[in-house]
Amino acid sequence: MIRIGIMGYGNLARGVENAITRNSDMTLAAVFTRRDPATVEIATEGVPVLSADKAPEYRDSIDVMILCGGSANDLMGQTPLYASMFNVVDSFDTHAKILQHFDETQAAAEEAGTLAAISCGWDPGLFSINRVYAEAALPGGTTYTFWGKGLSQGHSDAIRRIDGVADARQYTLPVEEALEQIRAGETPELTTRQKHTRECYVVAEEGADTEAIREQIVNMPNYFSDYDTTVHFISQEELDRNHSSMAHGGFVLHSGRTAEEYNNIIEYSLKLDSNPYFTGSVLVSAARAVYRMRSEGRTGCITMADIAPSYLIQTDSRSLLERMI
Amino acid sequence: MIRIGIMGYGNLARGVENAITRNSDMTLAAVFTRRDPATVEIATEGVPVLSADKAPEYRDSIDVMILCGGSANDLMGQTPLYASMFNVVDSFDTHAKILQHFDETQAAAEEAGTLAAISCGWDPGLFSINRVYAEAALPGGTTYTFWGKGLSQGHSDAIRRIDGVADARQYTLPVEEALEQIRAGETPELTTRQKHTRECYVVAEEGADTEAIREQIVNMPNYFSDYDTTVHFISQEELDRNHSSMAHGGFVLHSGRTAEEYNNIIEYSLKLDSNPYFTGSVLVSAARAVYRMRSEGRTGCITMADIAPSYLIQTDSRSLLERMI
Repeated sequence: MIRIGIMGYGNLARGVENAITRNSDMTLAAVFTRRDPATVEIATEGVPVLSADKAPEYRDSIDVMILCGGSANDLMGQTPLYASMFNVVDSFDTHAKILQHFDETQAAAEEAGTLAAISCGWDPGLFSINRVYAEAALPGGTTYTFWGKGLSQGHSDAIRRIDGVADARQYTLPVEEALEQIRAGETPELTTRQKHTRECYVVAEEGADTEAIREQIVNMPNYFSDYDTTVHFISQEELDRNHSSMAHGGFVLHSGRTAEEYNNIIEYSLKLDSNPYFTGSVLVSAARAVYRMRSEGRTGCITMADIAPSYLIQTDSRSLLERMI
Repeated sequence: MIRIGIMGYGNLARGVENAITRNSDMTLAAVFTRRDPATVEIATEGVPVLSADKAPEYRDSIDVMILCGGSANDLMGQTPLYASMFNVVDSFDTHAKILQHFDETQAAAEEAGTLAAISCGWDPGLFSINRVYAEAALPGGTTYTFWGKGLSQGHSDAIRRIDGVADARQYTLPVEEALEQIRAGETPELTTRQKHTRECYVVAEEGADTEAIREQIVNMPNYFSDYDTTVHFISQEELDRNHSSMAHGGFVLHSGRTAEEYNNIIEYSLKLDSNPYFTGSVLVSAARAVYRMRSEGRTGCITMADIAPSYLIQTDSRSLLERMI
């Protein structure tokens, strides 16, 4: 049995905890939190919830620690820190800081003789390796990534910070025409606006100027100004009833030629009813790979591009050959 | 530069030869054939075409030998034979014999201290690893594979063996309704007939009984009797003009739950203008991986499930991190 620890207990951790029950070679050893452990109720019976400070005492009873913090505030510090004590897995997703995060984690893991796998979700994660496989099979081709339809947490937060906004949800949607163009063999250069649209559901505070809120949203730099954005004002009740889904998904398309006259399209897509539960399930498969690769002597920092697929799956190698190759 | 040898020179070998020109870290060292080398004209200038008997003399000048023979008659013997002299890659695709082929190749490669990667195309190959990734991310889910629209060589051959048939091409097509059912979250148990249809284009010999030919085709056991099969009789001229495409493709879909209320769909699809050119390109990326893994000391037999994605691609690890994760 692979003994898993969970660091941080939010939606993603709930997904990890659930996924562990679906993988019979794993067991949840402990959950760590920065909150008061007495206030954190987890789904699994008989598993201790402990203060994050106590983690170092559990070095010998946890094979892989899955870090469930957020990329914005937690993981840049946490992953190197815990890689100095444990084999770790995270779902770090700030593309712009990935080299720095890799280097810092690599240094900590090498020094401690542990193995750390970073950015193991779906994007980055399964989407990343699909970009790698596609470019390996069709070098020099063009890769496109589309997200959605799905809730964007960061964009929802940005709307909630506007004066007069009581609550909000923001969906990112791929532009269907762009997808169809690529599927038809074209390789257009697409602007931000041509790839995705943004749809906002906003609860305004009583008496707030909704037109002013709409203006502030659609013109917000980085977040909305480069997109076609639709804003709907609805009641809190409607928001809670119709917009609490954590569904998400997306597409990676790669278009490349093997000869002037031969074009090829590789398409990978995910349609997920729960983003955190799916990401949690991928993290758990990555934890299995980390456990196995560490057992073979590997240390340092890796991503899913460095993991052979067979390390991720519980199936033994003979039945993998028979059933899946 | 990775020095590649090609064993056998047909359509697939032409695809491999072409792919080598698209990968600047590789060079074609020699082509081997069982035919009279003087009768084989290859596309690359200045590369020797040699009798297959001479291969053993080239052990030190070829890093990886790509075996381009067919699964039905060539590879069961050739892959273990050449694995005893070279690192090798093949695209063996007889699912029912894969364990035997793996074991025989493994024994030969272990004894010789070489590395052999078998079944490195798209199915088996990219489709195989997608089945593995999907089951790793969503254990206990249901995987479906659909092929087409594309030409089936074996089925075309079977029609050509019928008395009164001058020539024929057979296309396999996925049943669109089945695909849509799965994409909608259903996990139906599908019969052979519910997954694919078969479309035949047949040139009858002069005076042949076309109705008798049609009867023989649609009732042929294993090949056609379990499918809805359509037969069109056309002229040789029309066959040559409209049915010489080597296009193919297919779909791997995996449907699995992360909780009772959360379903997830993973879909991978290929749309290929030339099946042998694409397969050749995948073989070349696998040859790169074999070269790198052998350099790290790995020997024996592997499949693409044992290869980390980063080994397949020419891109260095830093720019892979920056551009693709």
